Amino acid sequence: MPIDDTREQQPLLVTMGDAAGIGPEIVLRALMREDAPAALVLGCPQALRRAAALLAPGSAWPIAVLESPADFAACPPRCIPVWAPPGLPGGLEALPWGQIDERAGRAAAACIEAAVRLLQAGTGRAIVTAPIHKEALSAAGVPYPGHTEMLQALAAPAGGAAPPVRMMLANEELRVVLVTIHMALRRALEVLDFDAVLSTIRIAHGAAAAWGQAAPRIAVAGLNPHAGEGGLFGDEEVRFIAPAVQAARAEGIDARGPYAPDTVFMRARHAPPRHPGEFDLVVAMTHDHGLIPVKYLGVEEGVNVTLGLPFVRTSPDHGTAFDIAGRGVADDASLRAALRMALALSAGG
Amino acid sequence: MPIDDTREQQPLLVTMGDAAGIGPEIVLRALMREDAPAALVLGCPQALRRAAALLAPGSAWPIAVLESPADFAACPPRCIPVWAPPGLPGGLEALPWGQIDERAGRAAAACIEAAVRLLQAGTGRAIVTAPIHKEALSAAGVPYPGHTEMLQALAAPAGGAAPPVRMMLANEELRVVLVTIHMALRRALEVLDFDAVLSTIRIAHGAAAAWGQAAPRIAVAGLNPHAGEGGLFGDEEVRFIAPAVQAARAEGIDARGPYAPDTVFMRARHAPPRHPGEFDLVVAMTHDHGLIPVKYLGVEEGVNVTLGLPFVRTSPDHGTAFDIAGRGVADDASLRAALRMALALSAGG
Repeated sequence: MPIDDTREQQPLLVTMGDAAGIGPEIVLRALMREDAPAALVLGCPQALRRAAALLAPGSAWPIAVLESPADFAACPPRCIPVWAPPGLPGGLEALPWGQIDERAGRAAAACIEAAVRLLQAGTGRAIVTAPIHKEALSAAGVPYPGHTEMLQALAAPAGGAAPPVRMMLANEELRVVLVTIHMALRRALEVLDFDAVLSTIRIAHGAAAAWGQAAPRIAVAGLNPHAGEGGLFGDEEVRFIAPAVQAARAEGIDARGPYAPDTVFMRARHAPPRHPGEFDLVVAMTHDHGLIPVKYLGVEEGVNVTLGLPFVRTSPDHGTAFDIAGRGVADDASLRAALRMALALSAGG
Repeated sequence: MPIDDTREQQPLLVTMGDAAGIGPEIVLRALMREDAPAALVLGCPQALRRAAALLAPGSAWPIAVLESPADFAACPPRCIPVWAPPGLPGGLEALPWGQIDERAGRAAAACIEAAVRLLQAGTGRAIVTAPIHKEALSAAGVPYPGHTEMLQALAAPAGGAAPPVRMMLANEELRVVLVTIHMALRRALEVLDFDAVLSTIRIAHGAAAAWGQAAPRIAVAGLNPHAGEGGLFGDEEVRFIAPAVQAARAEGIDARGPYAPDTVFMRARHAPPRHPGEFDLVVAMTHDHGLIPVKYLGVEEGVNVTLGLPFVRTSPDHGTAFDIAGRGVADDASLRAALRMALALSAGG
């Protein structure tokens, strides 16, 4: 089913997300722009048409419903090509806005699975996912708490283990890969160890190679103030962070550190010409050490990237925003950033 | 000895710091600018003359050695008024650059003590301290590890206890007050409690009142990802951070939170007109939660402010830089920011 031999000329695969949230609206808003990248939307045409009605009058482009993803190439410009994967429930266009509904969860999961299967079959360049709602997924009986776990499972080889993944948060200036994410800080201190740090460095390095950056400069942030100040303010740097950096270097990875957390992100910040950035990626030990600097200049520019999958997957760094769904006021900035990031990261494969 | 009845028309008191470091050089560089604030330097005239010789040829202004601080008012423009407090050791102009020396430690301590005594006697507007070296201080037998402890002791009433203080790191956009600072993250989790959080909020509020901001909007950052997500990712927010915020509110303090650490600093960022900032101050639980965002846009703009003292004290956010001392290349940006901050914080008293 490949549309083109060159993956770079293939469309991004964009899943519509939870149909009761802002997903369909921001997908359309982001793709109905002259500078939007080539993209195939996986979703429910009726739900998307309902969302199109939320846009500014006269601004919506027609939605072209494809019989098959391969018809993408024949879709004229200033149309939004939509393919409805098999198994979508009906009635999505009548869902109450902003409410948890198992049909929305079922549809969201079907779109995600279809996107992975398309990529595995050679169609599409990368996956960009609009927000889903964990409770709707759960109500639909989907056995995964969120995108990441579902994508891991879908990416696993038949009978094989799911690949280890890490979350990267990125904007135009900074790319941060997290060793620990959604757990108490106290718990993060328990689970952090040599293996966790080394495997994160390896995943970051492998992902960068996949997006065409063969020798990324990886800075590893410490855990403690001043990276422990030689053991005075904590020993995790001495016990396992520095050894993990050394082990990575022994594998040929350009990892450095551990560096003081309070300055390493500033040093990595890539804002040329005045501030070219000393590193390409920063590995952060905790959720907030990593996310504070990425979000500081404006959360709307943050993009979530899942590293470790055999394909590129990005998503906006916000949720379904049920509180404003259906009102036509949702901002597509983060989704557009996710589209740009997906293009960039899939350019060098 | 008051120079003027209005504290706002008084000079900043600037201590020269360790004479073997970059202190004298950056003090002169910062004050020999047309837009420099009125300042009285407490230091060794010979050491300062040696530093003046490091500046660009023709750029140095004359150093006016005052008999008494009260002579400040008679000092002509484009002169640097310097007062040598009693007890300065001789030979400071011959100290090897970049080396620990007990004479430098002794002199630095004498300047700090003199600055506090001047303020207590009604002369001076605020103290701005150039960097000192902890080991030089120790070699001189000074019984305090650094500026903060020394200033606390000097500020204590006769026979009374030293006032509790907190470190604020600030730049033009963001002011962050830290509950814990130089200790292992693991240790910070042990010492954080209701009293530590509440007293930090009170100190921050009191300091803001002293600098003329009667009802500062104080955001309290959580400790855990998403501020604990209702107890799912840690219970410190539920156990004592939220109660401390409530207790502060019951005292009439406009404290709010706990907020998710990854977005509260972005929300507080004051970059008008596009981003006016929702809060005036952020209370951060750990050193790096607070310092990462302050330093992200450039460490040279960070200013260290000691809150809880009965006067305003600021300092640049770097050390003596022994590695570049005596080479004439030290950057005065952070000291200039410290001077501006001292002016701003002492304007409303």
